[in-house]
Amino acid sequence: MDSPSSPPGTIFTLPVRVYYQDTDAGGVVYHSTYLDFLERARYEWLRELGFDIHSLIQTYKVIFMIRSLDIEYLKPAVLDDLLHVSVQPVELGRSRIAFAQQVLRDSIVLARATVHAVCVGTESLKPASFPVPLRHRIGHAIGKHP
Amino acid sequence: MDSPSSPPGTIFTLPVRVYYQDTDAGGVVYHSTYLDFLERARYEWLRELGFDIHSLIQTYKVIFMIRSLDIEYLKPAVLDDLLHVSVQPVELGRSRIAFAQQVLRDSIVLARATVHAVCVGTESLKPASFPVPLRHRIGHAIGKHP
Amino acid sequence: MDSPSSPPGTIFTLPVRVYYQDTDAGGVVYHSTYLDFLERARYEWLRELGFDIHSLIQTYKVIFMIRSLDIEYLKPAVLDDLLHVSVQPVELGRSRIAFAQQVLRDSIVLARATVHAVCVGTESLKPASFPVPLRHRIGHAIGKHP
Amino acid sequence: MDSPSSPPGTIFTLPVRVYYQDTDAGGVVYHSTYLDFLERARYEWLRELGFDIHSLIQTYKVIFMIRSLDIEYLKPAVLDDLLHVSVQPVELGRSRIAFAQQVLRDSIVLARATVHAVCVGTESLKPASFPVPLRHRIGHAIGKHP
Repeated sequence: MDSPSSPPGTIFTLPVRVYYQDTDAGGVVYHSTYLDFLERARYEWLRELGFDIHSLIQTYKVIFMIRSLDIEYLKPAVLDDLLHVSVQPVELGRSRIAFAQQVLRDSIVLARATVHAVCVGTESLKPASFPVPLRHRIGHAIGKHP
Repeated sequence: MDSPSSPPGTIFTLPVRVYYQDTDAGGVVYHSTYLDFLERARYEWLRELGFDIHSLIQTYKVIFMIRSLDIEYLKPAVLDDLLHVSVQPVELGRSRIAFAQQVLRDSIVLARATVHAVCVGTESLKPASFPVPLRHRIGHAIGKHP
Repeated sequence: MDSPSSPPGTIFTLPVRVYYQDTDAGGVVYHSTYLDFLERARYEWLRELGFDIHSLIQTYKVIFMIRSLDIEYLKPAVLDDLLHVSVQPVELGRSRIAFAQQVLRDSIVLARATVHAVCVGTESLKPASFPVPLRHRIGHAIGKHP
Repeated sequence: MDSPSSPPGTIFTLPVRVYYQDTDAGGVVYHSTYLDFLERARYEWLRELGFDIHSLIQTYKVIFMIRSLDIEYLKPAVLDDLLHVSVQPVELGRSRIAFAQQVLRDSIVLARATVHAVCVGTESLKPASFPVPLRHRIGHAIGKHP
């Protein structure tokens, strides 16, 4: 399995293999499982930016909560597919962020989604400003993607 | 646990209890799990209309596939909540159907979604017209909901 | 869907319907999903004894953790099956409890398991004695089952 | 994330990262999720031996079904852990195989399991002899592990 990578100028993608656990009796990946693949990619994107969940929670005392998402299912993924899940930040507010994500098999887009998340304080659970170092890194990531 | 019910003139709802399996380390129901709750409610709504999965597949040779969905997460559901998941058909085409669904705790809307599904032939996996008896029942269901 | 029930002298069972989310591309219920069905039944059994998760956590300050389990898969459950999941406490120690559980379709045993759990303090996460009222109720439940 | 690897003489392990989707409100990896991690490792082990799911199904017309398993939960895995899941075939019959598997965080064993699977014909769903090339590869794998 390839490691996640984002050479300069490219969109971050995470490879994901489809196992029986991800499929349903229709013979395809079950529709809610795509959201799990998208989550894995977002957290590996964050890690590559230099922020893992523990640093967010313990150092910056924030977590991300999903506010809304929309997803289109274009072509089904099936058992043993090697998928690539992309993460592209497309909007950044004081505490809100929107991601454009795709699930690809080779160059075919199987699903695409927009995911709206909000940064909240771990204690208040109310919207909190992004930690400054994270804002800088995300702002730079938005800038470098077409 | 209450049985699903839809007295005349009301919107179908399915009771769903939240267990550890549905939650995550944030202490709330994990975001993709809501889609599983929505699916359970749609299939019980179909059953109440007189159509279960086996009759769709074997008699009518059709299945439903999700084309797209959008969901808003308003307030979190938590461990041991008794939720009620509603199903309201809101659009009906030749082979497409859209559902408005809500996840409620008592009268509070925790999440709401629009789910677009399409009826496909079990062999062709291409869009197929709704079976006539099902179309009639759904059309009647759209008519009777406010 | 029937309500869970345990008339005097009978073993507690919870009805569980199989949806697409529970199945895999092999056309059957995915093997780890049975453990989710078993968990739902255990928590409804506890509720019927008069103890829900919140009373355990907040009043008695204990939770249950699974120490080990073994499961046999005898015949597969499939899409749209109405299963009945039984719960029978079979051993009770100071802080440990063992459950014998079965997943049935009509009278056919599809899977059976022994689940070993331990009562731990919510703060210490170390083994803690069962709350006395719960011990009495479980002891009575062990006594009344063959 | 490291690629799976098994240098000569070592036991096959697959790295697995823990995400929110794998955890529960107790703050730890949910007990049935470990079975999903074990499954991923078994299929990557098979791939490394030269057999992927499609070759099994299409060329050899067999699949594996789980007959039984037992698992001990020793220490909990938590959010963002990088786990290593091992696979060691320990018994090989005409159609049956047993795996010893462990879930490790660094050198600490968090969970260990024995998983009994059987090779069945895709059409008959009855026990079928292992394909000869696969038997040779597995037999060799049993031989080389301590």
